[in-house]
Amino acid sequence: MKVVAIGAGSVATHLIGALHKSGCQIMQVYSRTIQSATALAEQVGAMAINHIYSVYSDADYYIFSVKDDALSEIITQMPKTKGTWLHTAGSVSMNIFDGFHHSFGVLYPFQTFSRQRKVEFSTIPLFIEANNDDALQSVNRLAMYLSDKIQLLSSDKRRYLHLCGVLSCNFVNHLYSLSERILQEQGIAFEALLPLITETVNKVKHLSPSEAQTGPALRNDERTMQAHLLLLQDDNLKQIYKLLSQSIYQTSKQ
Amino acid sequence: MKVVAIGAGSVATHLIGALHKSGCQIMQVYSRTIQSATALAEQVGAMAINHIYSVYSDADYYIFSVKDDALSEIITQMPKTKGTWLHTAGSVSMNIFDGFHHSFGVLYPFQTFSRQRKVEFSTIPLFIEANNDDALQSVNRLAMYLSDKIQLLSSDKRRYLHLCGVLSCNFVNHLYSLSERILQEQGIAFEALLPLITETVNKVKHLSPSEAQTGPALRNDERTMQAHLLLLQDDNLKQIYKLLSQSIYQTSKQ
Repeated sequence: MKVVAIGAGSVATHLIGALHKSGCQIMQVYSRTIQSATALAEQVGAMAINHIYSVYSDADYYIFSVKDDALSEIITQMPKTKGTWLHTAGSVSMNIFDGFHHSFGVLYPFQTFSRQRKVEFSTIPLFIEANNDDALQSVNRLAMYLSDKIQLLSSDKRRYLHLCGVLSCNFVNHLYSLSERILQEQGIAFEALLPLITETVNKVKHLSPSEAQTGPALRNDERTMQAHLLLLQDDNLKQIYKLLSQSIYQTSKQ
Repeated sequence: MKVVAIGAGSVATHLIGALHKSGCQIMQVYSRTIQSATALAEQVGAMAINHIYSVYSDADYYIFSVKDDALSEIITQMPKTKGTWLHTAGSVSMNIFDGFHHSFGVLYPFQTFSRQRKVEFSTIPLFIEANNDDALQSVNRLAMYLSDKIQLLSSDKRRYLHLCGVLSCNFVNHLYSLSERILQEQGIAFEALLPLITETVNKVKHLSPSEAQTGPALRNDERTMQAHLLLLQDDNLKQIYKLLSQSIYQTSKQ
């Protein structure tokens, strides 16, 4: 399997690294700056390029992992190639490729990637789609190099999955971050929270989140909620506290 | 160690169960209804009572695990006893006992408890305080039956810890719950989220949450955020999305 990587950011680094480990041949890594192209290319034995017209035309896959905003511009600049084009974005329709190439699709790894963290790719659910049966077979073949959790999902539904990723990962992490700041001000180490947040996740592996809900908002315990609002000095934070508490209580009554 | 349990709810069930397992003698379990007193009492070989004046006076510990609102009323109704009185509430001051008994304190297990879930008590951080050195030794002795993660914490600071528990557990679980509902409407199983939410927690075991932050709000990716807002039909949810996104972006610039 010959692969050209378009983009060298965090998703690309993990995805292309995993493909390399599984035996795919990474031919080239493109990035706008030669430095970041080189950083990834060196890890996977590929050539670093920073001109999109320099991509080889004979790879099996062209994997676009660039910022959503940059994607359409880079597609218009692509030279004619063989193989299948695919992107890895949660909220971009597959049809962004329409009219630019004959065989295209999406391979969306549903996970959070940070450069500092190694991720076991085989445990990541991959959501795929393609513009025809041949392209789908091709995307699926590539996906099987990475994980055995492969699922077909339309662009339309993928947007909702991405939204839930924002709620359950980005927003969740931000609540950890706000907690860390509050604890820091009280001289309490963030580590004190780890058993609680670990159990919060472990619970929903066995119970539905609606069954697992606890806390003052669920009990409509006004006294505790008022006391918490008094502790919060930031107006934005007060607003977040009120809205989420209301939402917990309303949801429990539905 | 002779213990009287005042309250038979979720925290009491886990805490008293763990003390019983560690070899403490649970003498009585009090609850307003004899049914719920009996349910816990039978598990720990204790007598069930539903009149507070029936509590024995010679226990070493009287552990109050009742709803915050009910606590002060029940304390005023307590007969004179020996031993140490303690409560397990995150946001109630230790001084609620002041004037009612000579030796009192707090033992706050910082964890989320659901009846359907077993919890390994030895891994739970216990935050304790007491009204004098003797009482503190006494509370500490009891805590050591439960966990080796014991930390001294004042009532004032404990309120902040409890607040962070609400943010990092109750609010987080609610975000899972909202995600579950959105996915359900799209015919996607909630299980698809589990690798992502597990990694989100695993990350903050090694990185600070502010370093671990990812997502469209952090990048100020207006296009994706607008697209997500269009997918959300509920006004309350739209508002939550906006506020948390703003907060992520503002925090990252501080």
